[in-house]
Amino acid sequence: MRCDVLAIGTELLLGQIVDTNSAWIGEQLATAGIDTFDHRKVGDNLPRMVTALRDLLRGADAVIVCGGLGPTPDDVTRDAIAQVMGTTLERRPELIEHIASLFGTRGRDMPANNLRQADVPVGGDVIPNPIGTAPGLQCEVTIDGATRVVYAVPGVPYEMQQMVTDHVLPDLLERSGERAVILSRSLKTWGTSESGLAEMIADRVDAQTNPTIAFLARGIEGLYVRVTAKGQTEEEARELIETEERALRGVLGDLVFGIDDETMEHAVLTRLHARGWTLGIAESLTGGLVGARIADVPGASATFRGSLASYATEVKRDVLGVTAEHVVSRECAEEMATGAQRVLGADVGISATGVAGPTPQDGQPIGTVWFAMALPGLPVESVQTRLPGDRFRVRQFATISLLNLLRLRLDAMQ
Amino acid sequence: MRCDVLAIGTELLLGQIVDTNSAWIGEQLATAGIDTFDHRKVGDNLPRMVTALRDLLRGADAVIVCGGLGPTPDDVTRDAIAQVMGTTLERRPELIEHIASLFGTRGRDMPANNLRQADVPVGGDVIPNPIGTAPGLQCEVTIDGATRVVYAVPGVPYEMQQMVTDHVLPDLLERSGERAVILSRSLKTWGTSESGLAEMIADRVDAQTNPTIAFLARGIEGLYVRVTAKGQTEEEARELIETEERALRGVLGDLVFGIDDETMEHAVLTRLHARGWTLGIAESLTGGLVGARIADVPGASATFRGSLASYATEVKRDVLGVTAEHVVSRECAEEMATGAQRVLGADVGISATGVAGPTPQDGQPIGTVWFAMALPGLPVESVQTRLPGDRFRVRQFATISLLNLLRLRLDAMQ
Repeated sequence: MRCDVLAIGTELLLGQIVDTNSAWIGEQLATAGIDTFDHRKVGDNLPRMVTALRDLLRGADAVIVCGGLGPTPDDVTRDAIAQVMGTTLERRPELIEHIASLFGTRGRDMPANNLRQADVPVGGDVIPNPIGTAPGLQCEVTIDGATRVVYAVPGVPYEMQQMVTDHVLPDLLERSGERAVILSRSLKTWGTSESGLAEMIADRVDAQTNPTIAFLARGIEGLYVRVTAKGQTEEEARELIETEERALRGVLGDLVFGIDDETMEHAVLTRLHARGWTLGIAESLTGGLVGARIADVPGASATFRGSLASYATEVKRDVLGVTAEHVVSRECAEEMATGAQRVLGADVGISATGVAGPTPQDGQPIGTVWFAMALPGLPVESVQTRLPGDRFRVRQFATISLLNLLRLRLDAMQ
Repeated sequence: MRCDVLAIGTELLLGQIVDTNSAWIGEQLATAGIDTFDHRKVGDNLPRMVTALRDLLRGADAVIVCGGLGPTPDDVTRDAIAQVMGTTLERRPELIEHIASLFGTRGRDMPANNLRQADVPVGGDVIPNPIGTAPGLQCEVTIDGATRVVYAVPGVPYEMQQMVTDHVLPDLLERSGERAVILSRSLKTWGTSESGLAEMIADRVDAQTNPTIAFLARGIEGLYVRVTAKGQTEEEARELIETEERALRGVLGDLVFGIDDETMEHAVLTRLHARGWTLGIAESLTGGLVGARIADVPGASATFRGSLASYATEVKRDVLGVTAEHVVSRECAEEMATGAQRVLGADVGISATGVAGPTPQDGQPIGTVWFAMALPGLPVESVQTRLPGDRFRVRQFATISLLNLLRLRLDAMQ
């Protein structure tokens, strides 16, 4: 079963509105195990809608048309479907009543234009709209001798979502005769590039049928490996995912810092909390980003003491007690970490200092970053790295990289 | 001239990512006076990409293909374009060098997969990518006897945007033979709602022909009033914009904090720098966000001393010298501001303390925030506000609101 999507609206083409509807529909179709291969946007233009719809129906068993069901003259989805069916529109008395009653309850006169929303292609069915005036449509069409189905739903997201959930998906599943359940899980990684990741699990990706494996690059949030499985039952789908997850974790090891909603800061806080340790941060090039991410987690206050963005050299010296001559150096990073531990009264102190750009500093090129970690009862540790990109990216990557280092260090203590 | 858009990526069809790129491109095309009638999304599937591209090129003079230029085997945009051109790919030595040099500066080995990004259809041209490894493509194609052009740009938004702005739009305008120059400028505001803004300038918006006026809500970045003008020359377009800008500023007054690339943090730093004053920050609920935004401005180090995210109450007391009983209070905010001034050795100290949620604190509801400012030689000042939304939005709004308060306060001193 394949169902494609046609979104209607000149405002979508002009970028006045971002089409989030077709992404939402795509996700629902995928979860229901229905293929979707071609999504299109066209403007409020009858000939172009007819062409696009006819074209999509040549490849797909069904098409969901989203938008163009309003009352104004440029809402022509009804007309387009009638043309593709080779029929005309008829005005349905029961719909006139529904629309009039909605206007009645709203205490307003009904503009004559609204009667257009009572028009239905001859031979088509109505999908009720309990929350708006625009009824949906469900129409069978014969294309090249095959029977296809067109669903028309409103462009207003919550009306569309209710109609797709309550009516379109059940109808599609009934037509497909399938009762499959689709689940997916994202393994979130940090520490290698997308192509590096792809090479590590190339054989698993190549062999993919069920579950399937895909990569998603989410910038500062990490690189995700997404596993999607199809089963006869939810239990079967979950078991397929868990088996694949174990295999992937076997290859990816500690590159994986979490799944689904688990962020890097969540991973760090969980590990600290388990040991009953508090965290203090001293940041230079990141200017407060590391603390801001940590503080983003609800409940962070149990663990997070605070962060000092010691941007000026004098602040590093006067507040943190740094004595190192150069601020981009191992010594400075280490003194910042122990300073954070002491000044903020934290069990664990971590730090980042480096060159974000736009110009080199201390004779060090842009992207040079020193990280340090001071853990209870252990000598302070530090590591240097070279991060890619411009000022913005260097600061972002430094933030997640520092947190990742702490995560790995805490795991290594177990 | 008509240019359509083809977005590539199975993750777009599955709704894992919303396709914002084609909306952005559509907006740019509209601003440049180029028609766009058909936007499509297809997955990482070679035959379907070829079919869609060929089909679009039958109707449009040009097509922008967005995505599928990455290094992994499922990135097949290059192959699809070569097929539509009826040619093969050749590996370009200069691109190998570019990609290798990017990996070189990162001090990492280059995975063999990345060499695929050096492949170009025979007869095609390269669009340089100064900020990423994926080069863009510009290829002429003959369809039904007519010459069309295909541009391939990366799916990463900022790489795509730079390529479209610097290369694709100028090339399209040159091909269209149009010599009109389109310029636009955004007046960035903070302090009122979109409908409030709309009411203030309703008569100017209604009278719009050239320049046109539009609103853009950009969350934490502010509400933008965008002025777009078309002229025979750049000078003519610029003069139209500047006349309108003066008129709008007359109505909007100090709601406008900057234009185009000027951010709120830029506005604050410029004003402080003009007085030769340095800035120190004490943050509680924002956890470091205020400092992080300030540090985001290149050259911030001349003015920004640092920021203390004093998340734990003990850090407020021990490091900043706060004595106030309640942390969500006028007294606490004021002591934090003077503490930041003193401890960070700054001329100006500012602070924010409040309740971000998820639960109320100190008997205060979520969204209650106290701001304070300590300016040289003046008594410390403070203000309370109630911010809307959830934890994320409260922290974001608190950040820009604190900076906006300082901006207005500095302007009032002139």
